[in-house]
Amino acid sequence: MSLYTSHNPVFATFSFYAALLIIKTLFVAFLTGWTRFRKHAFQNPEDCNKMNRGKVKIDEDVERVRRAHLNDLENILPFLSLALLYIGTDPNLGTAKFLFRTFTAARFSHTFVYAVVVTPQPARALSYIVGQLVNLYLIYAILTSYASSL
Amino acid sequence: MSLYTSHNPVFATFSFYAALLIIKTLFVAFLTGWTRFRKHAFQNPEDCNKMNRGKVKIDEDVERVRRAHLNDLENILPFLSLALLYIGTDPNLGTAKFLFRTFTAARFSHTFVYAVVVTPQPARALSYIVGQLVNLYLIYAILTSYASSL
Amino acid sequence: MSLYTSHNPVFATFSFYAALLIIKTLFVAFLTGWTRFRKHAFQNPEDCNKMNRGKVKIDEDVERVRRAHLNDLENILPFLSLALLYIGTDPNLGTAKFLFRTFTAARFSHTFVYAVVVTPQPARALSYIVGQLVNLYLIYAILTSYASSL
Repeated sequence: MSLYTSHNPVFATFSFYAALLIIKTLFVAFLTGWTRFRKHAFQNPEDCNKMNRGKVKIDEDVERVRRAHLNDLENILPFLSLALLYIGTDPNLGTAKFLFRTFTAARFSHTFVYAVVVTPQPARALSYIVGQLVNLYLIYAILTSYASSL
Repeated sequence: MSLYTSHNPVFATFSFYAALLIIKTLFVAFLTGWTRFRKHAFQNPEDCNKMNRGKVKIDEDVERVRRAHLNDLENILPFLSLALLYIGTDPNLGTAKFLFRTFTAARFSHTFVYAVVVTPQPARALSYIVGQLVNLYLIYAILTSYASSL
Repeated sequence: MSLYTSHNPVFATFSFYAALLIIKTLFVAFLTGWTRFRKHAFQNPEDCNKMNRGKVKIDEDVERVRRAHLNDLENILPFLSLALLYIGTDPNLGTAKFLFRTFTAARFSHTFVYAVVVTPQPARALSYIVGQLVNLYLIYAILTSYASSL
């Protein structure tokens, strides 16, 4: 039986947390747009008009949200590929759930301390590192499972 | 039977539109390079030589194409993951085709009005929103299918 | 039988090279952080303290590593989706191995000549083009396999 089916609880759990992680990333995209309107700071002349009183300018609040967004892309998108391939190694359900939940919590925390309520370090560094440790473990599990495929 | 097989028309349709979306994104990457040569604007000293008359400088035409490219990464890459997981929920073929085609049309339109022929708003805003609404629907479908996996 | 299983050597090979490509991308992320500390150049006020003698400033060495990282995201993430869908077309194992290895070698080379030992062109251009040719071939294979799904 294929492991990539909703009958496999590891796949079902991954689908659920992947959707949570992506809606969190979309929230950061919406936050960027909202901050642009709030600070009247846009990137294109055609985005500025009298109603939004927009100017083409760089605003530090907008840039902060954009950095949080880019960091999501750098970390969450690789996680989605890694976790999908990890499912194919037929992992223990408890281990997989622990990894998916830890990564999700770390990335929600990362967004919160970076772009919602700016928090002193090491709040963001720790969130980042926990997420990357999950990614490194997934890489390790995949490489050792398929080492003979080199 | 697994849903992730070319015999499943939802999977086949997804594969086709995913390839279209990615070739569109690669086109924007090539457009960036072409605009760099046309405007002699590069990012690295080693890219500049007498033949291309290049300088390390920022050019607004190049930046516009790069913003279109980054927007593709922010929207198309999450869509690819979401649509793949959505297939696992065994959706209706007609609904899935409608969603995949709508998203593809929205992103082709987004690139055209942003980076090919600069078009007044709300052309780009509408293209963006239609794509994001498809992503939100996919997230909703996945979360409700796997709600018991929390 | 599903093609998305560790018993399919094409899938096993893909999993292995995908993990290699992602650990290479994570290495570039760590290199960015390391260069920030080495050059005392950070993006956020809360990242600067007496111990790291950091300032919020733009440093060309950091920017170079960041460009290498962004280029990875633009090329490797689409490859991961394309290669995954290509597996569903039941390709020849030898062809698939050749494509996965070529892409992996091209991207390791790209990172090396861009961000580790800065190398004159056309070293980086060739690495980039070889990777993109693999992506274009994968798109071609997927589109022709599923052409009837339009």
